[in-house]
Amino acid sequence: MADKPKKPQKLKARLPRGLEDRGPAAINATRAMVEKIRAVYERYGFEPVETPAFEYTDALGKFLPDQDRPNEGVFSFQDDDEQWISLRYDLTAPLARYVAERYGTENIVLPYRSYRFGYVYRNEKPGPGRFRQFMQFDADTIGTAPSGQSSAAADAEMCMMAADTMEALGIPRGSYVVKVNNRKVLDGVLESIGLGGDENAGRRLTVLRAIDKFDRLGEEGVRALLGEGRKDESGDFTKGAGLPRDAITRVLASTCPETGSNEEIVTKLALVSESQIAQEGVSELANITLLVAASGYGDRVRIDPSVVRGLEYYTGPVYEVELLLDTKDEKGRPVRFGSIGGGGRYDGLVSRFRGEVVPATGFSIGVSRLQAALTLLGKLDTRPEFGPVVVTVFDRDRVADYQKFVALLRNAGMRAELYLGNPKNMGNQLKYADRRNSPCVIIQGSDEKARGEVQIKDLIEGAKAAAAIASNQEWRESRPAQFSCPEGEIVDRVREILVRHEVRWG
Amino acid sequence: MADKPKKPQKLKARLPRGLEDRGPAAINATRAMVEKIRAVYERYGFEPVETPAFEYTDALGKFLPDQDRPNEGVFSFQDDDEQWISLRYDLTAPLARYVAERYGTENIVLPYRSYRFGYVYRNEKPGPGRFRQFMQFDADTIGTAPSGQSSAAADAEMCMMAADTMEALGIPRGSYVVKVNNRKVLDGVLESIGLGGDENAGRRLTVLRAIDKFDRLGEEGVRALLGEGRKDESGDFTKGAGLPRDAITRVLASTCPETGSNEEIVTKLALVSESQIAQEGVSELANITLLVAASGYGDRVRIDPSVVRGLEYYTGPVYEVELLLDTKDEKGRPVRFGSIGGGGRYDGLVSRFRGEVVPATGFSIGVSRLQAALTLLGKLDTRPEFGPVVVTVFDRDRVADYQKFVALLRNAGMRAELYLGNPKNMGNQLKYADRRNSPCVIIQGSDEKARGEVQIKDLIEGAKAAAAIASNQEWRESRPAQFSCPEGEIVDRVREILVRHEVRWG
Repeated sequence: MADKPKKPQKLKARLPRGLEDRGPAAINATRAMVEKIRAVYERYGFEPVETPAFEYTDALGKFLPDQDRPNEGVFSFQDDDEQWISLRYDLTAPLARYVAERYGTENIVLPYRSYRFGYVYRNEKPGPGRFRQFMQFDADTIGTAPSGQSSAAADAEMCMMAADTMEALGIPRGSYVVKVNNRKVLDGVLESIGLGGDENAGRRLTVLRAIDKFDRLGEEGVRALLGEGRKDESGDFTKGAGLPRDAITRVLASTCPETGSNEEIVTKLALVSESQIAQEGVSELANITLLVAASGYGDRVRIDPSVVRGLEYYTGPVYEVELLLDTKDEKGRPVRFGSIGGGGRYDGLVSRFRGEVVPATGFSIGVSRLQAALTLLGKLDTRPEFGPVVVTVFDRDRVADYQKFVALLRNAGMRAELYLGNPKNMGNQLKYADRRNSPCVIIQGSDEKARGEVQIKDLIEGAKAAAAIASNQEWRESRPAQFSCPEGEIVDRVREILVRHEVRWG
Repeated sequence: MADKPKKPQKLKARLPRGLEDRGPAAINATRAMVEKIRAVYERYGFEPVETPAFEYTDALGKFLPDQDRPNEGVFSFQDDDEQWISLRYDLTAPLARYVAERYGTENIVLPYRSYRFGYVYRNEKPGPGRFRQFMQFDADTIGTAPSGQSSAAADAEMCMMAADTMEALGIPRGSYVVKVNNRKVLDGVLESIGLGGDENAGRRLTVLRAIDKFDRLGEEGVRALLGEGRKDESGDFTKGAGLPRDAITRVLASTCPETGSNEEIVTKLALVSESQIAQEGVSELANITLLVAASGYGDRVRIDPSVVRGLEYYTGPVYEVELLLDTKDEKGRPVRFGSIGGGGRYDGLVSRFRGEVVPATGFSIGVSRLQAALTLLGKLDTRPEFGPVVVTVFDRDRVADYQKFVALLRNAGMRAELYLGNPKNMGNQLKYADRRNSPCVIIQGSDEKARGEVQIKDLIEGAKAAAAIASNQEWRESRPAQFSCPEGEIVDRVREILVRHEVRWG
């Protein structure tokens, strides 16, 4: 049998894994969220700044999200001059580059208070709700006082702003908490168990990552990860930090969640380690407690020793916003949202470029993650908007007439369009208007043309009437919500329909 | 002499070439532009859609911006599974992929009318005002009628929308023109001079690129590029299309700018070539002329045979928006803006995935380019906004008190912040408030504290007074625009200042 001639290979239309396309509901929800967050950040005195999507890889630096696999975690390519460039994996590293470039010049006012939002890119294994492109919204203050109450105020302010942002987004007080801790407390403990110094950076990170999983694995799981390691449900083994039993006990004692007032928890933490660094951390937490209470945020901003954040670059206070709401997914399984934002102090990030310490603190909201949570919670308005008025094409040689009706409506500020598909079938045109959720359609056949009139079909009223009228026969005869009007009255009559049904336009 | 010990190498803070950071004025201007464009596109019945920043390289396909250097033009990297991924270089190719993926399913309504905006990335040589990341704002209709007036209406609508968009952006009628042509006219001529068929695609593109430079090089320059080639001012030689003299004359005759009414130009074009394809093109232009005139856009949408667009994928009508305004740059040299947007019909772009023709047409605005033009023309409001109210730190142990004043102002909806730098020097704090363009500052020393009062310094009034008062001595004595008020009146008194100076807030 002779081979059949091969058909030319068609290209397959598909996205790389871990990416998503977004439609009107998601886009409008993001826009509404971004506007609300922006308003709060502006009220706090932050000003916008924007950096490009990519940077020299060395500027993003050693603070890659996944140090264990140095070539992974980010998307990188080589420029013409062979220098490596990477897509940004967060908005903090590019900001540090931005500030370092201008530090000490007339081009920046210090302390520099800025906000920015945009997509970031992670070359990681995607999973449910876990994408390789997602949006963050950050605020940062760079060049704060190095210590004392003014320094703590920069951190306290981030926590209060996080709380205000949650409420601006419709999450009621009591349904979220802003948790604060200080890395220096754990650093003091790690130093005292022999994990200080640059040479132990890798092990310290393993410890951080283990504690960061407290929420998900509980004390036993974390204990295993601090020791030899842990086998998860799928049978995969994660190597642990290899700490001796005593050390594990000390680490856990300093990072277990505590109950009590902020003041009581700070007092307990003061007993965890006598090292200078740990005592500094406790004193900073005491200042944050004081500041937060004075401004009336003590009920929403809570000291929590279990918060450590999984990134290496934090040098002092760290914070995390957690949603306390839970809900069920489509299959009825309980969903806990957990952390939807966080941040902390990173006094070393700008200094990589400067050779001097530049005190800085910042807060980042995971917009994509928060949007997924708010959508599940029904806090985002996802009702479909009404589409445009559709002018149909009855006579395919009179498209210019129909186009003129469209232009009239548009010039009067209303959303309108001509049906642009193949006009041979009026049924298809009405079905199209229906699927676009159009409030009404306009039809002009030759009879109406001769009389200088058009037919207007109110689709919203029509749908209501169709629901109310039992008999198909009756519905057809009454032809509800369809009427004729002179061409010159199109704009007024359509506007009446939009107003009656409260269709937003303009 | 012994070597000095090397200092640890500091990282250099810099951006890769062809990229830019953006501050508040540019960001706010873009936001205002995007909102105005969005409003027009929505009024035309388009709905938003968004695709990720990168795609499989093969999905972006053979329509790379620069075919002569197949590895250049785009930024590409390999995924874990070795497939090549590229950053999008426009918003059309990803849309074609999006539609092809859903075509013929319930997930898309045809004709599909959508808009989208975002950054695109070109791995090209950057130049003045020419960046490797810039913003586009596109609208497209996919799945139109294949031919006839309904098909032409889709193109005519794009041209009218371009005109409405320019006016929404503050460019007065007469200061812009939307030029339309049809690729099929030139295709007919190229066919008749033996440049038809797939095997001549490369040479056709060279011809297109040559004609596309008419604006810049004039007829002589284009003639050289159609023939042997051309040496530019820098001495670089660009190889030409190598057409014989007769062919060059025919090509130029069909693409020279013409004067006269749209109807007159269409009549002239009908004589250019008798080929079927050219006559189809002329008939489409006649329909567009008719539609545009009927809706009252004939003065702004003009047939212009010199418009061809430099991209290979256009298959019918092509259009371009040109600013007719000119201005001077900082050095007093005249600046012509030329094309700031364009588009056309691309019936083959979706069909790469589908194996069937999917009629489509789209329009793209170069937002970054248009913003540069509007900024030079003074059409964008770049007045500095007022900054936040600044509460200063007089006594570094009473930061909690000052923070409370800030919280009061913020909770009343006003922009306010605590000075977060090192508080040792009040002069620095006032200088900071000045550089942030703050309307007023709040100061509370121990005397005021004892009296339960604060000092409010109206910086706007102060600046006016300082300008009016000649003598430094006199100024110091009158202490204009500074007053005391009880702590409980801070919010009211600050609001009075903001209202008096018309500072926008909330």
